[in-house]
Amino acid sequence: MTQRILIQLDSDLQPSSFDSVVAIDAGVEQLLRYGGVQVTSVETLVHGAMFTRGGDDLCKTAIFIGGSDVDVAERLLKACRDAFFGPVRVSLMLDANGCNTTASAAVVAASRHADLADSRVVVLGGTGPVGRRVAQLLAGDGARVTLTSRSIERATRACSEVMETVGEGEVTPVAIAPGGQTAEALSGAEIVIGCGAAGIELVDKETMLGLDSLKVAIDLNAVPPAGVGGVGVTDKAAPIGSGVGYGAIGVGGLKMKTHRMAIESLFTSNDRVLDAHEIYAIAKSIG
Amino acid sequence: MTQRILIQLDSDLQPSSFDSVVAIDAGVEQLLRYGGVQVTSVETLVHGAMFTRGGDDLCKTAIFIGGSDVDVAERLLKACRDAFFGPVRVSLMLDANGCNTTASAAVVAASRHADLADSRVVVLGGTGPVGRRVAQLLAGDGARVTLTSRSIERATRACSEVMETVGEGEVTPVAIAPGGQTAEALSGAEIVIGCGAAGIELVDKETMLGLDSLKVAIDLNAVPPAGVGGVGVTDKAAPIGSGVGYGAIGVGGLKMKTHRMAIESLFTSNDRVLDAHEIYAIAKSIG
Amino acid sequence: MTQRILIQLDSDLQPSSFDSVVAIDAGVEQLLRYGGVQVTSVETLVHGAMFTRGGDDLCKTAIFIGGSDVDVAERLLKACRDAFFGPVRVSLMLDANGCNTTASAAVVAASRHADLADSRVVVLGGTGPVGRRVAQLLAGDGARVTLTSRSIERATRACSEVMETVGEGEVTPVAIAPGGQTAEALSGAEIVIGCGAAGIELVDKETMLGLDSLKVAIDLNAVPPAGVGGVGVTDKAAPIGSGVGYGAIGVGGLKMKTHRMAIESLFTSNDRVLDAHEIYAIAKSIG
Repeated sequence: MTQRILIQLDSDLQPSSFDSVVAIDAGVEQLLRYGGVQVTSVETLVHGAMFTRGGDDLCKTAIFIGGSDVDVAERLLKACRDAFFGPVRVSLMLDANGCNTTASAAVVAASRHADLADSRVVVLGGTGPVGRRVAQLLAGDGARVTLTSRSIERATRACSEVMETVGEGEVTPVAIAPGGQTAEALSGAEIVIGCGAAGIELVDKETMLGLDSLKVAIDLNAVPPAGVGGVGVTDKAAPIGSGVGYGAIGVGGLKMKTHRMAIESLFTSNDRVLDAHEIYAIAKSIG
Repeated sequence: MTQRILIQLDSDLQPSSFDSVVAIDAGVEQLLRYGGVQVTSVETLVHGAMFTRGGDDLCKTAIFIGGSDVDVAERLLKACRDAFFGPVRVSLMLDANGCNTTASAAVVAASRHADLADSRVVVLGGTGPVGRRVAQLLAGDGARVTLTSRSIERATRACSEVMETVGEGEVTPVAIAPGGQTAEALSGAEIVIGCGAAGIELVDKETMLGLDSLKVAIDLNAVPPAGVGGVGVTDKAAPIGSGVGYGAIGVGGLKMKTHRMAIESLFTSNDRVLDAHEIYAIAKSIG
Repeated sequence: MTQRILIQLDSDLQPSSFDSVVAIDAGVEQLLRYGGVQVTSVETLVHGAMFTRGGDDLCKTAIFIGGSDVDVAERLLKACRDAFFGPVRVSLMLDANGCNTTASAAVVAASRHADLADSRVVVLGGTGPVGRRVAQLLAGDGARVTLTSRSIERATRACSEVMETVGEGEVTPVAIAPGGQTAEALSGAEIVIGCGAAGIELVDKETMLGLDSLKVAIDLNAVPPAGVGGVGVTDKAAPIGSGVGYGAIGVGGLKMKTHRMAIESLFTSNDRVLDAHEIYAIAKSIG
């Protein structure tokens, strides 16, 4: 029996133990782990995956791209695709810093409590990799998205990037100064998702409790204090104001299932490329 | 079936092949090996172990700390413990440079031929990691220990460290100049254990043969010449003077069994911390 | 059941994924992979292989030496052998940059179409590791070999090295200036093997078609343009002029089988050293 091999490319010096354990639990039999991976090292490693197994066995080798730096990971993903020769290729998955599985799980959790196509969503602190992906997945499903940042320049740039990826939809940048008018930005929102840096409160509990339109609030920050006031890190559809809340651990179960199922699906054919869109589809199938 | 994963943290650039092979032979199914590990890299790696498996499966992930530098390993062990959140933790084992398994095997071998609680023991060249551990285990079992070094300062410091760890007992520093009065330091000793650097004779054969009180002599140096004169590297309870002798390979079988059993025991719960004391208990159970 | 462990030593910073996948497909159960390996790191790693398993289990650990730099790999091989203590050793295989499996497969492919002991062979661009090995295997089987290079000095040095290894036989250096008299050098050759750098045409198609003595032409260059004009990269005994041709992929099947069988044979005893000669014998047994 040909063993399932996952080549783990990680731009961090020490490749993620998290990604390795999840891969093993998803049925990977042999892990080839690489740390400190640079774009220049990719071609040889990908060719080693392409040219060692033929026919039906080629799909038993796949590549996972991780690391804490999502931008570098995207360049590694491109380098992998550039190394392919037509149909001679292996499946690829990008989940650097958990960006795709986290964003997908958050949006699926939100969709349990509100019709995305009919919702106004505010993505707080949304300029990072997870925030941009959350906005992308929401806009792709027809939500009207507001993306906030302390800097209007960064918010605007993130929105442009999201719109480029999605093609159509509504993603509007809003700047919120520290201690500024968050309530105003949230006004009328059914969904609020906090994607800011660890340990920064993006909106206080009072504001959240006063938001009458709220159906679901999600805080993806795992380190206290909460990014979205009133949402506990382990909350899972716990009541908050007029809606329910999910914390980082509260969406963690779905995130983990999505991650494992995505890894499993890599080995079903040799031409999969799992990025935000494809991983979101997997998360949706789990619900 | 959840696979047994061991995360091998090694401060050497190339993680130990010795530790990896022993881990595999002890039933580890997947090794996640890290070289050049620094204290700053530990937290993320430990969190990856803590947050990927839940419930009964958490104890199927454990961490081994190795490397040739025992002091660095102790700092890595502390960093692992600092990364835990209360009961969310995984089992840990420290055996950098084989210090704990070697010291434990040596003391257990000695205990076959003399009642430790009733013995005077001289630990020759005892200021290194193995020597300090040998002294610690002996003192903990009630032996009266003399620890020698060429430097009285280093001997005194080592004895203080040992006493701090043990809490009670007798560990006395003695300086022996090169070519100095070893016979005097050994006078009345039932147990002599050589823990010095490779290739240095700590005591000559004549002195050993003249030591009437001797019950057991152990030389942990594996590279000729012998550290304890008259003890061959493969000796295992071979006659020497009035007692018996063990060489490094002579205690090697017990050391290896102890190492393997310690690795196995890591996966029986998620909260074990195997350092000198715990590994000695395992060696004792083997006998 | 004691698991088959392969220690993969690679002088490249990122150890070869190609070599790892082939090892797994050859039945290796646990890979201990090392990148950036230097001669100074070898002893400890080899001792870890030697001193962890005893008796019949020792042969279940073996060492593979790879990396893109064959000269460094040869120094690593020597360092491995130097680390052994008499019969306490493990089996070794060197196939840095695929040099031995590629050269062996090429020579075996040639032997299907011509009696080596009765042939004149030209090894074009033969000063590199693969070319020198091709010349060595051919000369060892009695072929009269001409080895070409753009530089007579390098050709002469390569021939001397080959003769030193083989002991007896005929290996003659010839310099061919770029655009020079290749036809003259090839005159009367039954076998032509191109071993030059990727993307350099060593001889044009016209010359090959005009070579009446030709029985078999092999081009080991996998990147267009062909090194030996008229030979396609996937050709496998395809007609060319008066003989047949093989491209790099055309001999690839035999190369891969040889590589896998060589890895398998490492675990049949603890004292094998698989370099050019031994790997050629394996390729011959496959045919």
